Amino acid sequence: MKVLVIGASGIIGSAVAAAFAQHQVIRASFSKSDISVDVANPESVRALFDKVGKVDAVLSAAGQAAFGPLRDLSDADFAYSLANKLMGQVNLVRYGIDFVTDGGSFVLCSGVVSRRPMAGGAALSLVNAGLDGFVRSAALELPRRQRINAVSPGWVAETLAAMGRDPRVGTPAATVANAYYQAATGTMTGRVLDVPAL
Amino acid sequence: MKVLVIGASGIIGSAVAAAFAQHQVIRASFSKSDISVDVANPESVRALFDKVGKVDAVLSAAGQAAFGPLRDLSDADFAYSLANKLMGQVNLVRYGIDFVTDGGSFVLCSGVVSRRPMAGGAALSLVNAGLDGFVRSAALELPRRQRINAVSPGWVAETLAAMGRDPRVGTPAATVANAYYQAATGTMTGRVLDVPAL
Repeated sequence: MKVLVIGASGIIGSAVAAAFAQHQVIRASFSKSDISVDVANPESVRALFDKVGKVDAVLSAAGQAAFGPLRDLSDADFAYSLANKLMGQVNLVRYGIDFVTDGGSFVLCSGVVSRRPMAGGAALSLVNAGLDGFVRSAALELPRRQRINAVSPGWVAETLAAMGRDPRVGTPAATVANAYYQAATGTMTGRVLDVPAL
Repeated sequence: MKVLVIGASGIIGSAVAAAFAQHQVIRASFSKSDISVDVANPESVRALFDKVGKVDAVLSAAGQAAFGPLRDLSDADFAYSLANKLMGQVNLVRYGIDFVTDGGSFVLCSGVVSRRPMAGGAALSLVNAGLDGFVRSAALELPRRQRINAVSPGWVAETLAAMGRDPRVGTPAATVANAYYQAATGTMTGRVLDVPAL
């Protein structure tokens, strides 16, 4: 398979790229990969596909959203979250359809806060749950046997370690990447893969 | 109770206003109510609260989202859906917090397409699921014992009838309105009320 990993320089994205080591991997991210893309900029997303051409899977570990107390989240914080992690990934699908091969697939990244809310996560819950909803419906309409799924990771061990917190309560990035691999190489569609399942 | 119904001229909104007939009801909608508000316009939402003042419940049956084949939904269709039904209702909460009394509540309107996807519903699934996610997290942070819930209706019988379809497969608007009443007068918070539950 030829796979395009967006957010490839991040903790999850680099693990996803490693999981597909037996395949042809094209790495894209905001600043630290072979190809630069700003998912929040529709023109940048369109240019990405024009540059990369046909792929068998679009694997997104990209997108930022604001985190903080509800009363402190500004109009700009919500707009940033919607444009970046939410519509950035939705646009990877919308603009990518014509570049994905027959039977190819999309895997997007949502997150546990959609189903397990937390203080400070109002914008992130909105974004993650919105992505899950989009995936469920878009799966019904993709052409040429294309599939779409979301991986919804909990806290990632390596992220916790980078934050100086106990990584043992998190999920290893390699485990999250395995869910991407199963989604891209399996037959499922319209699914939200909770990693871990709890 | 003094309640503010937004979208009060619509099929669900007018049923919600009727359900609170024993209370003081302030009706707002885009064009056909005592008070005019455009939920997609943040300044209009702020002006609404400045005009209305303190209320015990903000009951939203407002907001539009685009519906149509995924390939036909434009950038503008997604932007409209996000600004209107999604952020319009999120902003009713963000801007309304200081105008809702201690122990008062918000009730937002999402919809069944968040959990039961349908072709043509990619933007609507995103919006409805996003609202459900926002409600779950915002409930953890509202001050002064304020509560927030979403009512997630299926197809409404009166809407189906207006479309020339069989209303018997839908849920009566009065049943949907009853969920708003239970949410506003009960003790629940952070809940998504599926009406019907199936």
